[in-house]
Amino acid sequence: MNYPWPEAGTPLDQVVTPMPVIDEDRLAANIAKAQAYFNQHGKAFRPHIKTHKIAAVARQQLAAGAVGINCQKVSEAEVFADAGFEDILITYNILGAAKLKRLRELHERVARLSVVADSEAVVQGLAATFDPAKPLAVLVECDTGGKRCGVQTPEAAAILAQKIAAAPGLRFAGILTYPAIGGAAAVETFIVRTMELLAAKGMDCPIRSNGGSPDLFSAHLVPSATEHRAGTYVYNDRSMVRSGHCTTDDLAMHILATVVSKPAPDRAILDAGSKALTSDLLGFSDYGMIEGFEGARIVSLSEEHATVDLKDCRIAFPDVGQMVKIVPNHTCVVSNLFDRMVFHRNGIVTRVEIVDARGTVW
Amino acid sequence: MNYPWPEAGTPLDQVVTPMPVIDEDRLAANIAKAQAYFNQHGKAFRPHIKTHKIAAVARQQLAAGAVGINCQKVSEAEVFADAGFEDILITYNILGAAKLKRLRELHERVARLSVVADSEAVVQGLAATFDPAKPLAVLVECDTGGKRCGVQTPEAAAILAQKIAAAPGLRFAGILTYPAIGGAAAVETFIVRTMELLAAKGMDCPIRSNGGSPDLFSAHLVPSATEHRAGTYVYNDRSMVRSGHCTTDDLAMHILATVVSKPAPDRAILDAGSKALTSDLLGFSDYGMIEGFEGARIVSLSEEHATVDLKDCRIAFPDVGQMVKIVPNHTCVVSNLFDRMVFHRNGIVTRVEIVDARGTVW
Repeated sequence: MNYPWPEAGTPLDQVVTPMPVIDEDRLAANIAKAQAYFNQHGKAFRPHIKTHKIAAVARQQLAAGAVGINCQKVSEAEVFADAGFEDILITYNILGAAKLKRLRELHERVARLSVVADSEAVVQGLAATFDPAKPLAVLVECDTGGKRCGVQTPEAAAILAQKIAAAPGLRFAGILTYPAIGGAAAVETFIVRTMELLAAKGMDCPIRSNGGSPDLFSAHLVPSATEHRAGTYVYNDRSMVRSGHCTTDDLAMHILATVVSKPAPDRAILDAGSKALTSDLLGFSDYGMIEGFEGARIVSLSEEHATVDLKDCRIAFPDVGQMVKIVPNHTCVVSNLFDRMVFHRNGIVTRVEIVDARGTVW
Repeated sequence: MNYPWPEAGTPLDQVVTPMPVIDEDRLAANIAKAQAYFNQHGKAFRPHIKTHKIAAVARQQLAAGAVGINCQKVSEAEVFADAGFEDILITYNILGAAKLKRLRELHERVARLSVVADSEAVVQGLAATFDPAKPLAVLVECDTGGKRCGVQTPEAAAILAQKIAAAPGLRFAGILTYPAIGGAAAVETFIVRTMELLAAKGMDCPIRSNGGSPDLFSAHLVPSATEHRAGTYVYNDRSMVRSGHCTTDDLAMHILATVVSKPAPDRAILDAGSKALTSDLLGFSDYGMIEGFEGARIVSLSEEHATVDLKDCRIAFPDVGQMVKIVPNHTCVVSNLFDRMVFHRNGIVTRVEIVDARGTVW
C-alpha cells in the first residue's frame, strides 16, 4: 500500500486520512488494568491478538504478565510464531490436509501450541497428523450459550475429551468456551458439570478457558475457569462502551477522517468508508461515533464515503477540508484493513507498526 | 499474507479456504456484454476498477473497448498509473496539501487525468495546485438523487463550472453523477438543464458522465450522457441479481468456504467470516447466498466464522470438512480483503493475480 505513513513526531492533524490511530497511554492503561484484574483474581490471561495483529503490541501484553497469546487461524499463528511467540492457542477447528500439514510444522517450532476441537471429525484429522513423540494439546470447545461452535452439553464434552485422550498423538488439555455476554452462570455450571463427568472417568481437566472482552471484569464470576481470553479490551471501541466494559476515556483507537463534501444543510460526506470503518454494526444503527458532534450520525457507508446525517446535530459541523475523529463500532475489523497502524501520544505520532497478521484468514 | 495460493491447474476442491475465486468465462462474458451494449448505443464506457483492483483485469476491459478507467482515490490511481494506464478519472473530491501534491505528480505522468469537484473549497485547492502549462481536467459532480456527494441543482453546477473555467490551472471538462437506482429520468433532466445554463454562458460541456452497475443496461435511457462508469458488472454479485442486472449464471465471483462445525441440528459454522465476506448487507438480511442450499441462511458473521441457520433448509447440508460456494452480497469489498485473487475455468485454476490496489483508501 502506497500510504504516506507519518514519521514519529508528526502532529496528527498533518496525517493523511482516513487513518486509524492508537493512543499509547490508553493502550498501556488498558493492558495494565486488565492484567491487574486477572492477577488479583489468580487467573491466567491470554490476549487474543486478532484485535491488533501486531507483534509489538502482543509483546506489551506478555510483558504485563499474559501467559501466552490466542490466535484464530493457523495463518495468524504462523505470523506470531515467526515473531518468536512460544505459547499460542489457536481457538479454531482445523480441518483439511493443507492446514493440518502447516499446523504440524508450527508445532515443531512453537514451544507450547494448543488447539481446540468440537467434533469427532476434527479430532480424527488432528489424531492422524500428530504422533506420540510430540503430542498436540487439544481443548474441547463448548457452547455455553454463545451459539457459535462448541459441543452442546457437558456429556458431549466428556465424550470428546475421552476421544482426544485416546489418540496417541493428542493430549487432552482441558475445555474452552466463548460465552454469550452476561453468561457467567451458564459457563460456571457447564465447566463444573464437565469436570465432574471427567473426574468420574478418572480424567483431569487442567485448563478451563473462558473468554470475551465485554465481560472481562466479570471473569471472577466464573471461579472454576483457570484462564480468560480477550481481544478488544486492548483498544476498546463503541461496543465496549455500550457493554459497560469501559468509558470513552478508555478508547485507544480513533479513525481520523476528512470532510470532503457538505452538499446539503443536513448532510456531510467523510473520506472514511467501509474500506476504513467496515460495515460492522454490532447492533448499532449507524457506523461509528463522531467525537464531539452529538447527533451527527453516520447513516450509510460506501467503500470510500461515509454519509453523515446532520439533521439532529446542534453543533456546527466542520467544513470541507477539516478533520473529524471517529470511534469505530468494532476495532478488530479496522486493524485488518490497514497495512500499518499509527500510534501517538497526546496527538504526536510515536511509532508506525506493521499490522503483521493483516489478512490471515486461512 | 502467508496464503498457500494454488498453482495453475489445481482443482478448486483442493484450494485452502476461505478463498474467493473468479470464473474466467463469466468474467470475459460480463466484460464483452457490457462493452457491446455501450458500442451499440454509441456511449463511452469507463469501468470502475474498485471491483477488481487488478491491472490485468482492467487491461481486459480496455482491450474490449473501454475508453479509460475510473478510480476512487489518489492512491488507487497511483497504482494504475504505475501499471501504465494512461486515461484515469478519479471521482473524488481531493483535498489537503499531501494529496494535492501527489495528484500533481500523477498528472505529470498520466496522459489523460481528470478529477471531480462539488464545492468551491475543492476547486480552490485544485486551482492552487495546477498551472496553465498543463491544466487539469475537472468535472463538476452533481447529485441527481444518489444523495452522496454533488452539487444539488443545475444552477449550482453551472456556477461551479464557471469557477473551474476561470482558474488558469484547470479546465472545465464536463459534469458527472452517480445516480440513485432507477434514476435515469432525473439524470437526463439534470444534464439537459445544466447544458442549457452553460450554453447560455457560451460554455461547452463535453463530458456528461453517468454511472452505476444496477442500471448499466438502462444507460440508453439517459441520451444526453456521453459516458457511463460501472464497477460491479465485471464480477456481479447477489445485489446485482436482485437489481435485475444479471442472473446467477453471470456471477463470476464465489467464495469457497469449509464447514468447520455442525454443533446443533439447525446450525452450521463456515470458515468464512467478515474478514472474507465483509459485513456488507446491502439491504439483505443475511451475509451471502450458499449456492445449492436454498433456505440455509448466513445469519451472523464474526471475523472468522459464518453462522448458518439450517432451520429452513430442506437439503442435507455438507458435513464438517466439506466445502460450500458462497455468492457474496457485494464483490468489491471482498476484493479489498485479499492480497491475491484466484481465477479458474470450469473449476481448474488458471492464474493467481495480485490485487494491485488492495487497501488504497487515501
